[in-house]
Amino acid sequence: MEHSHTPAAAEADGDAYRIRPLQLADLSKGFCDLLAQLSPSPPLTEDAFRARFAELAALGADHLVLVAEDAATGQLAAAGAVLVERKFIRRCGLVGHVEDVVVGAATRGRGLGERLVRRLVEHAKGRGCYKVILNCTPELRGFYAKCGFVEKNVQMGLYF
Amino acid sequence: MEHSHTPAAAEADGDAYRIRPLQLADLSKGFCDLLAQLSPSPPLTEDAFRARFAELAALGADHLVLVAEDAATGQLAAAGAVLVERKFIRRCGLVGHVEDVVVGAATRGRGLGERLVRRLVEHAKGRGCYKVILNCTPELRGFYAKCGFVEKNVQMGLYF
Repeated sequence: MEHSHTPAAAEADGDAYRIRPLQLADLSKGFCDLLAQLSPSPPLTEDAFRARFAELAALGADHLVLVAEDAATGQLAAAGAVLVERKFIRRCGLVGHVEDVVVGAATRGRGLGERLVRRLVEHAKGRGCYKVILNCTPELRGFYAKCGFVEKNVQMGLYF
Repeated sequence: MEHSHTPAAAEADGDAYRIRPLQLADLSKGFCDLLAQLSPSPPLTEDAFRARFAELAALGADHLVLVAEDAATGQLAAAGAVLVERKFIRRCGLVGHVEDVVVGAATRGRGLGERLVRRLVEHAKGRGCYKVILNCTPELRGFYAKCGFVEKNVQMGLYF
């Protein structure tokens, strides 16, 4: 997900890819294929997709999934999510968690990932979060630094 | 939050501290003082605490705050939370995020933090999560390793 686009390329992409919230119709626009480039994601049935979509919709502005649609093909070229955590610390502060950012292999290097991440960050800021955090592999530090993030801590995990 | 308790100490703590979900009455049991040991947390008004408590209660099993109450004093000695994220990847998988774990300074070194974290992990497992993740400072790697976590990635943050 390294980027080295020129301003001209970024301008062109502004027309070529439309960033918008996930829609029910996106299951047939390559959403699962895109996610499979990030993590094991077998194709979802229409029912499973609709059920999860409805659960997330019920969370309103506290969970946003954005996708970038390729205007030429109608297929999805990138996706990412942000969820809002409600805390007690910092005067009942809110924290945005950026998750599952993926740019399709064919579309990398055009600044689309950065545009998408900035949109997720804007959403969290508009929702009143005092910070946005994410976890990434060490190789992606440079990409997220370009998006305005600084390295903070260590991520640990426990797998069942 | 370093621990070096003996089995005997752990056993005694099993009676001395009761780990249970956060309650409305906990505002007067030192909840904000405890959180202030973790992060800037000015005292909350009763209204602010009740409002956030209700928001989290509405999330049901998807957001759990546990506290440890000192049986002798009735004050809170530790707290921690886990929230469940609903994903599309991994067949609409669920991920638990452990947040805001704090053990009061006077109670550290008795294994209470580990007991609390293990309870949060159990909750996430019971809820069907395929993993639990958390972010911590490098100094706490050893503590979380003892709780069953392995180091995975880098945490990055963007502060507004």
